[in-house]
Parts: sequence; C-alpha cells; structure tokens
Amino acid sequence: MGIGKHLAKGSPKPQLPDDGVLRFYTMRFCPFAHRVHLVLDAKKIPYHSIFINLHEKPEWLTEYSPLGKVPALQLVTAEGKPALIESLIIAEYLDELYPEPKLFPADPLKKAQDKILIERFNPVIAAMYKIFVNTEVSPGAITDISTGLDVFEKELRSRGSAFFGGDKPGMLDYMIWPWCERSEMIKYLLNNKYEMDKERFEKLLNWRDLMIEDEAVKCFYLDGETHAKFMKSRREGTPNYDMLVNPTKRQRTC
Amino acid sequence: MGIGKHLAKGSPKPQLPDDGVLRFYTMRFCPFAHRVHLVLDAKKIPYHSIFINLHEKPEWLTEYSPLGKVPALQLVTAEGKPALIESLIIAEYLDELYPEPKLFPADPLKKAQDKILIERFNPVIAAMYKIFVNTEVSPGAITDISTGLDVFEKELRSRGSAFFGGDKPGMLDYMIWPWCERSEMIKYLLNNKYEMDKERFEKLLNWRDLMIEDEAVKCFYLDGETHAKFMKSRREGTPNYDMLVNPTKRQRTC
Repeated sequence: MGIGKHLAKGSPKPQLPDDGVLRFYTMRFCPFAHRVHLVLDAKKIPYHSIFINLHEKPEWLTEYSPLGKVPALQLVTAEGKPALIESLIIAEYLDELYPEPKLFPADPLKKAQDKILIERFNPVIAAMYKIFVNTEVSPGAITDISTGLDVFEKELRSRGSAFFGGDKPGMLDYMIWPWCERSEMIKYLLNNKYEMDKERFEKLLNWRDLMIEDEAVKCFYLDGETHAKFMKSRREGTPNYDMLVNPTKRQRTC
Repeated sequence: MGIGKHLAKGSPKPQLPDDGVLRFYTMRFCPFAHRVHLVLDAKKIPYHSIFINLHEKPEWLTEYSPLGKVPALQLVTAEGKPALIESLIIAEYLDELYPEPKLFPADPLKKAQDKILIERFNPVIAAMYKIFVNTEVSPGAITDISTGLDVFEKELRSRGSAFFGGDKPGMLDYMIWPWCERSEMIKYLLNNKYEMDKERFEKLLNWRDLMIEDEAVKCFYLDGETHAKFMKSRREGTPNYDMLVNPTKRQRTC
C-alpha cells in the first residue's frame, strides 16, 4: 500500500475509480486507524486509502465521518454507500463480513473475554498518551503503563500461546498492537530513559518480536524513531503528516 | 425481580443456590447495569441479582469484576465460572447466546450502524452527568443534551418506525434507555426548569411514551422523582442505595 498526501482544508474530494473497492479515510500516524489497517491487511481486503490532515480537515470529511474523525470506512457497494466509524466497530464488522482468517474467537464467551481485554488496554493507551503528547513527563505514567501491561503479560502466560489469538495473531493482538508499536518511541521522547523490564514482561517482549514479523503488521510498520519524529512535530503544533510521502527505508509497503 | 440490600465492605459473599442461574452483580440506580437488566428481562433470561454498594465495595467484588465495577455477569455454568464486565460487551454476548428475541439487527452493516449510534449517545450521557452530579448547573449541558438528541430524533424520523429496532425495541433502544428514563429527573434537580421541546423531539417523545409500556422497561422502571431522590443522596456523599429495599409504589417488579 502506497502512502498519499494527507488531504486538508480546501483539498478537493479525491477522484477514485468506481471499482467497488472499500474507501478508507485514515491518517498515517493514527493508532485507531492503524487498527483497521491491520484488520484489512490481515484479511487481504483491497482498499483505497484516503489520508486526512486532522489538523486542517477537508470540508467534505463529515460526509463520511460525522464527527470528523478517522478511521472511517466507506462501503461503496452497499446501498447509499454508507461509511462506518469507530475502530472496534469497523474491525468487528470486517471480521463478520470477511471471515478469512477469522480474527475474533468463534466462541461467544471467548470473544467477549477478548473484547474485555481490549477495553482493559485503555488505561495503557491513556498513560502512553501522557508521555506522547506532553513535553513534561507525567511522573506516574510509566508506572501506569507497566501496571496496565501486567494484565496482558499474565494473560499471555495463562494462555500459553505465542499470540493472544493462539499460534497466529487474532483480533486482540491487532487491537492493542498500534500502541505497542508506538511504545518504542518512548525512549526517543524520554532520551533513552525507558526500557521494558525483561523479566516482568518476558512473554510480551517475545510477543512483540513475533508481531513485528507478522505480514499484516509489516504492511504498516514504522520504527520508534519515525513515530517519535512525527510526535515531536505534533507536539510543536505543526504535525508533519506527509513526512513519509516520499517513502524512506523506514516506510515498508505491501 | 425483587430488590435486595446492597452488599458493602464487610458483607459476606451471598450464598446462592447451585442452580446454574446467571449471577448478576448490579446496583439499583446504575444506568450501565440497567442496560444489562433490560437485555436479560427482554429475553426473559433468569438471573440472580446481587446488589453492590459502590461507595463501600465488598472485598470479594474484584473476584468477579477486576476493576470493582458493575455490571458484572457471572456465567456459573461455563468452565471456571467466569464473569463478564462492560455493559455493551455483556449485552452483545447475551444477544448471541440467547437469540430470542434477537435485539441487534441480523445484518452486520445494520448492526454496526446501531453500534455507532450507541457510541454517538455518549455525549448525551456526558452532558446529563454534568447535571446529575453537579449542584451548580453547567450552562452548556442542556444545549449539549439537545444537540446530542437531535441525532436520534433525526434517525427515528429517517427509520419511520416507532422504535429504533422497528415495531419493537431492539438493542439500540435498550442501550440508550437508561439515560432517557433518567432524563426525567432533570426537572426535579433543576426545579422544573427543563422540558424537552415537543416539536423538536416529537418522535423521541412518542418513543419514550412507548418505551415506558415495554415489558422489559417496566421490569426495572423508576420515575424521575425517585431517580432524583437517589441522585440527591449521592450528591450529598451518602448514596442511599437501599431506599427501595422495602418496595414502594414506585418500585415495579417482574
């Protein structure tokens, strides 16, 4: 998947072929949109990416996303060409419509338990954001991240599998991955003052190494330094959405 | 369904029969727990209610709900007797396990669209809470409630049905109902300074009248005055969880 310029206020609507292919309104560095990229790529569903400048949004964005947020996925072959929003809702919809490979467990109880774990990852997200967006380090944030991740280390130990989904990534793996990938930027933002405890997070660190080798993860992977570079531009109030438009060695494509 | 005393710090675990019946950890006035009561009652699923004092929580609550929240639903017949948390996750699980009547649309797209609307109700919840819990009226809150409800009025008009679910309530109806029921307490909290605009919310007001007559809604219904009485006790820092333990005329039971 190539990466296009992020469309901004004043940008005309993109002219896309009438080919029945899903249209995905996204932003290259948005972790919530990243969730949906992972599901689309894991299922090898074709889609057109329309990259959006979230700082200066194009006027027509609300036609597809009433609150002007990404991700939004337009279903061009459904009646009225509706668009779906909310990463978890889109992910579950895609899992129902495109069951190969099935990402949520088929068993309703196991599925509900994985959804609960996705919700229980929210405190990790909140703590990471304190570090990502604030130039002053919030003292409890690192502790909160570790406490939040303890739940997932324990879960992985209890499941006894490489991934939460078993011998390959499932929905839980993909839904928490965007922030796990971005956790690598913390050392750049905090000048190397952060590293995950190798004993405390033995299983999770092994999981991370395996996730990076997953085909869907590779499709949209960026290293910590690149994520940090974007985040620093965002902190300065001038997010550099298009910093990867001319692909560099850090930008892998599928 | 009768109402028991809310168990508090120091309360022993309730002794329940080994009858395979679901065990539901709830609180009589919690709107999130209310969502699950509605689904259980709409599907006529038997359950034991264990009422929890959320101000002084029983020590054993975290065995069933790791974050000490309600609702939590314990599946006593599943291996390990696990408990589920998060109202929407429990609701969807119950809809999969007990399909009669099906509350979410069977079509994945319509289901996803209803889930998006449930998410879009969150600003209404947030605005209502500003009024419920604060003794000083937040000036924009009433406007925010109306703006949020416009989405639902418009949706109901566009669907052209009495309920969001069609000719009877579906999941979207039940998931937003707890706060719609509680909106009736605003006039008591604001000394009659609040009434919904009869033209602007014509369809929603008709919907509300019909919802009150629904069997599942009746099972757990309380009038605005009763909700306001509880909320005032909560505002004073001494929530009167047990104010309905001796049923009054306002407490209907199934």
